[in-house]
Amino acid sequence: MTAQPPPGLQQSHVAATRWHESGFAATGAAAFDALWGELAPVGRHARTGGYRRFAWTAADAALREWFVGAAQRRGLDVTSDRAGNLWAWWGDPDADGPGLVVGSHLDSVPDGGAFDGPLGVVSALAALDVLRAAGRRPRRPLGVAVFSDEEGARFGVACAGSRIITGALPPDRARSLTDADGTTMAEAMAAGGHDPHQVGPDAETLRRIGTFVELHVEQGKGLVDAEHGEGAAVGVASAIWPHGRWRLDLRGRADHAGTTRLADRDDPMLALAAAVATARSAAERHEALATIGKLRVEPNGVNAIPSAVTAWLDARGPAERGVRSVVAAVGAAAGADPLEESFTPATDFDVVLRDRLAVLLGEVLFGDAGRPAPVLPTGAGHDAGILSAAGVPTAMLFVRNPTGVSHSPHEHAETDDCHRGVAALARVVEELG
Amino acid sequence: MTAQPPPGLQQSHVAATRWHESGFAATGAAAFDALWGELAPVGRHARTGGYRRFAWTAADAALREWFVGAAQRRGLDVTSDRAGNLWAWWGDPDADGPGLVVGSHLDSVPDGGAFDGPLGVVSALAALDVLRAAGRRPRRPLGVAVFSDEEGARFGVACAGSRIITGALPPDRARSLTDADGTTMAEAMAAGGHDPHQVGPDAETLRRIGTFVELHVEQGKGLVDAEHGEGAAVGVASAIWPHGRWRLDLRGRADHAGTTRLADRDDPMLALAAAVATARSAAERHEALATIGKLRVEPNGVNAIPSAVTAWLDARGPAERGVRSVVAAVGAAAGADPLEESFTPATDFDVVLRDRLAVLLGEVLFGDAGRPAPVLPTGAGHDAGILSAAGVPTAMLFVRNPTGVSHSPHEHAETDDCHRGVAALARVVEELG
Repeated sequence: MTAQPPPGLQQSHVAATRWHESGFAATGAAAFDALWGELAPVGRHARTGGYRRFAWTAADAALREWFVGAAQRRGLDVTSDRAGNLWAWWGDPDADGPGLVVGSHLDSVPDGGAFDGPLGVVSALAALDVLRAAGRRPRRPLGVAVFSDEEGARFGVACAGSRIITGALPPDRARSLTDADGTTMAEAMAAGGHDPHQVGPDAETLRRIGTFVELHVEQGKGLVDAEHGEGAAVGVASAIWPHGRWRLDLRGRADHAGTTRLADRDDPMLALAAAVATARSAAERHEALATIGKLRVEPNGVNAIPSAVTAWLDARGPAERGVRSVVAAVGAAAGADPLEESFTPATDFDVVLRDRLAVLLGEVLFGDAGRPAPVLPTGAGHDAGILSAAGVPTAMLFVRNPTGVSHSPHEHAETDDCHRGVAALARVVEELG
Repeated sequence: MTAQPPPGLQQSHVAATRWHESGFAATGAAAFDALWGELAPVGRHARTGGYRRFAWTAADAALREWFVGAAQRRGLDVTSDRAGNLWAWWGDPDADGPGLVVGSHLDSVPDGGAFDGPLGVVSALAALDVLRAAGRRPRRPLGVAVFSDEEGARFGVACAGSRIITGALPPDRARSLTDADGTTMAEAMAAGGHDPHQVGPDAETLRRIGTFVELHVEQGKGLVDAEHGEGAAVGVASAIWPHGRWRLDLRGRADHAGTTRLADRDDPMLALAAAVATARSAAERHEALATIGKLRVEPNGVNAIPSAVTAWLDARGPAERGVRSVVAAVGAAAGADPLEESFTPATDFDVVLRDRLAVLLGEVLFGDAGRPAPVLPTGAGHDAGILSAAGVPTAMLFVRNPTGVSHSPHEHAETDDCHRGVAALARVVEELG
């Protein structure tokens, strides 16, 4: 890393490089397509076509191996932190001060789509390729991050990797989280080659992050609805809604379905039905979102009244008060005390950074600095939100999602839009790096 | 086998042997206790304490091996039929005409109890031990049967073994039934050492059964409520209610729980809630029983709106018309057409046999031929019901269940009552054998 940037690099910051129009756009697109193709088969379920890339599984190990290989081919130094998050550095953040980090995650929800997470990682690597092909040398170290277990699909806590290093998830609690088979996160980590005793807040890693930018597929139709026309392939996040997960432990008594009188039953499925109906009605009333998408039924036999139903409630909304009201209403309807597995307050991203990027992307997308890119909030949590809450200057870019569908095999982004995302991210890295 | 029974045997049929009062009661109790102890650990889940003895699994193979060993130690000839049901014969049913068969099944529902099924098999072996210890030689061949896959816990069709051999379950349908992992019954059978090409109606096996008697733990509190006092440890079945299983395929669209507007959602969990609530209210209205005890949610992620919920409805009642009305109401509420996976019309057991056994057990239990044992119906299906519907003279004995709980780790019968069941069954075998 040069302490003094060469004149040419300074120049590029004065006259914004129009990566999307230059020949280097082809470099970014080609890098993106190659990396995307490598990832496509990993953890894909043959029947559903969706991805099952759960933390600390064989699929996860394959993804990590892929990332390490892709980073090393680019001459980046790869390290793992105390939560097992991966960092690939161009330059030395310990020697040359905090760097600019771009990245996202590679894990998925059950039968998730290809874009949620990997789009940000692949775009980050491709953006670096664009800068290197153009001979740019960043003024500060550049990192590409892959966060562990962002979805929380296996252990129930989303953004586990960023929560651990920022201290939002206490190490003992993280280690003792269990999956559906009773395997603890500590056991799963050990099986995946990460020492669970290392788990904990990681000041050394956080010190290296001067700024974090996460590019992500949009998970709604905000960009489609933004009426910016064809050009609004990329937008900037304003905020993440307050959101959380609660577990409802609905207890009953197992009994034979064919011989137990209705009056003698203690059937927790009835409490579930009340919870589901109330989640919808209360969310409507409070202009929030509430979903019961995951269940565990015991013993789950056709002719057995369940002994227990466990239901997970996901609730979010523009205001924390409304979210709390929804959760309380669902608990009351089900006759159970909702157990908070995680809660993240509202995240307002760095306003100065946000507005700067909106103008920058306006130039990239519309060739018009006076027409900023769309700025929009989201109900989805991200590692960027966790880092922002921990005091890291943070921004997010969203790539347009034509249907808004996410967490589904049908999640999609047009390839052209993905390529525009790479160009936009390259421009952001050039500007902030 | 003697063509002419010795005089002593004839005598025993004139003056009913009071097995429960004789020294041979100790023989039966000891045999029962020993066999029961051997079975106790097989397929028991460490955490729940319930049994997971599913058809054609390793636990099932261990149970089959146990039965073959126990039968062979008794000098019985063990054969397997076209469905993999096991038959242990004392005497030759092909040479000496149809025999008397006693028995039940060894498989369980998920986290089932120890008694449902195994009680009938263990009691059958112990009853034969009583007769042999007393020097009795039966007039016709005696068989002990173990039916395959009675609970249908894995492939969704109850009494699969008896349905296959009687032709109630077509062989192609049986072979193509799949479990939750997508394994077909044919594949599972092959893995368990049974050639799936053999599957089909089995006239040769059915021809050997002159009479079938199944002893089973009661799965309600009919005997407790029968006001027969302490003596009513065993009763006789009058009928099995019409009963069936229906599958509800509730389709939706997977989407992100945090970003999809309520109005844009197609969430099948709401249809499930309506189905559950309606199952209860319609069952109350029609004086029937209806249960949704098994669910499959896809993708079953906390932050994913489900793409599909599959729910299984178990419905039963004294009258078929009421049962059909309940199923239709549930389908209408859920907006789905219930798929009938199995249906068994009402079974009225052989009336002459039933009354004969009630008198016989009255003598055994109360020492009073003028005070017959309780006769009671049940909502639970059994292989005895399938054989009865196929024209086999059939009876069932129930052993008292103090709580009525079944299909649960808490299922229970007092040991004294189990021993009384052995004595009663020995007396029945002596009388009918």
